[in-house]
Amino acid sequence: MSTAPPLLLALDFTGTFAFALNGALTAVRAARLDIVGVVTLGMITALGGGIMRDVLIGAVPPTAFQQWPYLALAGGGGLVAFALSQWLDRLETPINVLDAVGLSTFAVIGASTALEAGLDVTPAILLGGVTAVGGGTIRDTLVRRVPSVLQSDLYAIPALIGAAVTVVTIRAGIYGVWAALAAVGVCFVIRMLGVHFGLQAPVPPAHRDGNA
Amino acid sequence: MSTAPPLLLALDFTGTFAFALNGALTAVRAARLDIVGVVTLGMITALGGGIMRDVLIGAVPPTAFQQWPYLALAGGGGLVAFALSQWLDRLETPINVLDAVGLSTFAVIGASTALEAGLDVTPAILLGGVTAVGGGTIRDTLVRRVPSVLQSDLYAIPALIGAAVTVVTIRAGIYGVWAALAAVGVCFVIRMLGVHFGLQAPVPPAHRDGNA
Amino acid sequence: MSTAPPLLLALDFTGTFAFALNGALTAVRAARLDIVGVVTLGMITALGGGIMRDVLIGAVPPTAFQQWPYLALAGGGGLVAFALSQWLDRLETPINVLDAVGLSTFAVIGASTALEAGLDVTPAILLGGVTAVGGGTIRDTLVRRVPSVLQSDLYAIPALIGAAVTVVTIRAGIYGVWAALAAVGVCFVIRMLGVHFGLQAPVPPAHRDGNA
Repeated sequence: MSTAPPLLLALDFTGTFAFALNGALTAVRAARLDIVGVVTLGMITALGGGIMRDVLIGAVPPTAFQQWPYLALAGGGGLVAFALSQWLDRLETPINVLDAVGLSTFAVIGASTALEAGLDVTPAILLGGVTAVGGGTIRDTLVRRVPSVLQSDLYAIPALIGAAVTVVTIRAGIYGVWAALAAVGVCFVIRMLGVHFGLQAPVPPAHRDGNA
Repeated sequence: MSTAPPLLLALDFTGTFAFALNGALTAVRAARLDIVGVVTLGMITALGGGIMRDVLIGAVPPTAFQQWPYLALAGGGGLVAFALSQWLDRLETPINVLDAVGLSTFAVIGASTALEAGLDVTPAILLGGVTAVGGGTIRDTLVRRVPSVLQSDLYAIPALIGAAVTVVTIRAGIYGVWAALAAVGVCFVIRMLGVHFGLQAPVPPAHRDGNA
Repeated sequence: MSTAPPLLLALDFTGTFAFALNGALTAVRAARLDIVGVVTLGMITALGGGIMRDVLIGAVPPTAFQQWPYLALAGGGGLVAFALSQWLDRLETPINVLDAVGLSTFAVIGASTALEAGLDVTPAILLGGVTAVGGGTIRDTLVRRVPSVLQSDLYAIPALIGAAVTVVTIRAGIYGVWAALAAVGVCFVIRMLGVHFGLQAPVPPAHRDGNA
């Protein structure tokens, strides 16, 4: 997003690096991978959601292929994870915080990009969510895990709320740097509260009673 | 398809809801999911095939994001499955019938849309098949099942036959509401005969002899 | 690529058939599939990487749907694998050689296509790699295997090197039939050396020491 304000762009770059780092570490834990696998899965985690959004709104080639910092940060995050995976495993908390920054920023930028591309309110919110969780979903599928976003934790829900705040403020004509940061902040706070208190989304009734 | 005749559109909406319901129920049985997972997989089952087709023919944003009834019916089907999964498990036969309606309608509309977009006969038939089975394939992959369409039952074959009837009648200049309904009917009947008699597509020779 | 020189086109067709054959055989070994599954996975292996590239650069409908030899060769390879899977299992070496021809040609054509579409050097090299390994990655995921390209052997690395030679010679203004064949040859030789000597890409440090 070359037109995004500097602070939002800085958050977007931070999120890209954090997603690549965290995505590659998760992949290393879940499957036996070589350097190609670790770096690829880091890059897919960081860039996959935005690429899915860009393909779906017809903005191809995707931003990730047109602005070099995204590829560089995603590849760099994957390489750092490859080299330092043992050491980084001890940094769970700061990595979780940076990952929440990425989740929040991707949801906000994804939703505003989709709305600018002419999508209606509901699809734009959904594409904000896709931008935020799409990369991790592809990664989990490639290492044969049911995507964690479908199973546990509050991960998609804060992203959808952040995307909704974005879309509502744009439609209300009050979107700008501050509204964007507020939307990022809302998603970030809900996500961190979810991590801290171990909040879970509801499961189907059948699973509530027994141990299905 | 805002230009589709009302009866075909009604079948398309019915199929969308049925695919979401059935897709979400299948997902609930295969993996431990929360509400985000159940509704997401219902929506992916209902909309994924059409989105794949639209991306492949360059018709983006996909129809599913441009005409609200599709998102509403898909999300609604997923929510109903979430709330009533225990009760719906007893309704296997009517859900199978509605699912076959969706399979048939998606194959016919998918093939005609692809042909209108300028594709040749064979790719248009294949994209009819992709429209019909693509969403369920993504769902199965996400819950770590080998897609059932690749393994058993007559599911892709009736869809391809329905798509072929569609394409042939369009090329013969006799396509219209009645030809479309005939193509839907052909696919539907073959699918239901397959369900009723437990018909299977051929397996590779090695598997015929032993229990590989 | 109707504009590719005849020799490169012949290699591309050979690779398409070989990928379909090898992809379908791999799928038969990994999962119990019917004829729909075997042929579909052969076609996805052969065409999936090129389709991903075309979608990402906005060249839709993809080449695979616009030039009939690709669909015919991919479908034919899948059908041959279905009929002769037991017998073909004995032909591992020639199939590996033909597969390396496909890997090399797909990487070179993929990178040059991406560069012509206006992508920069690094994304064009990556898309050459995606063209070469994308189809096999989708196939592995559908039959519930962690994609082998992420885990073992030199497979993506020779493809990326072939793509890099392609991009560098195009940018240097010396690309043509001979440069393309040289790039194909570089990838092919590295791949075959890797197969012959059992070369592996590096794994993360944690895996070097123990048996994680």
